[in-house]
Amino acid sequence: MIVKYYKDVPLESDPNGKKAGIRWLLSKKDGAKNFAMRMIEVEPGGSTPLHSHPWEHEVYIVEGESKIKIGDEDKNVKEEHAVFVPSGVKHTFRNIGEKTLRMICVIPLKEE
Amino acid sequence: MIVKYYKDVPLESDPNGKKAGIRWLLSKKDGAKNFAMRMIEVEPGGSTPLHSHPWEHEVYIVEGESKIKIGDEDKNVKEEHAVFVPSGVKHTFRNIGEKTLRMICVIPLKEE
Repeated sequence: MIVKYYKDVPLESDPNGKKAGIRWLLSKKDGAKNFAMRMIEVEPGGSTPLHSHPWEHEVYIVEGESKIKIGDEDKNVKEEHAVFVPSGVKHTFRNIGEKTLRMICVIPLKEE
Repeated sequence: MIVKYYKDVPLESDPNGKKAGIRWLLSKKDGAKNFAMRMIEVEPGGSTPLHSHPWEHEVYIVEGESKIKIGDEDKNVKEEHAVFVPSGVKHTFRNIGEKTLRMICVIPLKEE
């Protein structure tokens, strides 16, 4: 049975982000064919890179507080909220809280 | 911007489960093309139906403790763990804790 505690999956630093990293929780190596589940982590004051790509994100904030920018919109969002990031729209998640911001982020695998 | 607090999404009871329900957090209605993100909730003593289907699940346990059965394997799994359920394998999640078991569960949308 494939079960993983998130901290047992290596945290890879995102060279384009600021104090941001990613854990690939479930992906092709686990037999996933359609989509990959990652944990994105951002330290206080850090942010994911402002970027866009031709695929969507489905995000669930597990812990922390973020100022999210998607296209021209900004919104402060706390844990236990789901966020949809459409394909082709610039977005960034900034940690505006005092804890590590942790988010489940799912992407289509064909784009991995 | 599509942002949803999980409790603002209706909890639909699962008639085949025991004290189990589902919230469709992100799906086609939100513009998702490839996969849907749901929150599965199981009350103490309840369980999701033992069933299989020709698509995979990617699960993240947000809160609670579950005895998971996938195929012939059983495992007790707590919050902050990711679980991969392969396509075509019978599985059930039983709540063996005292809190509501809450899990993010992602499925391919073509099978919705």
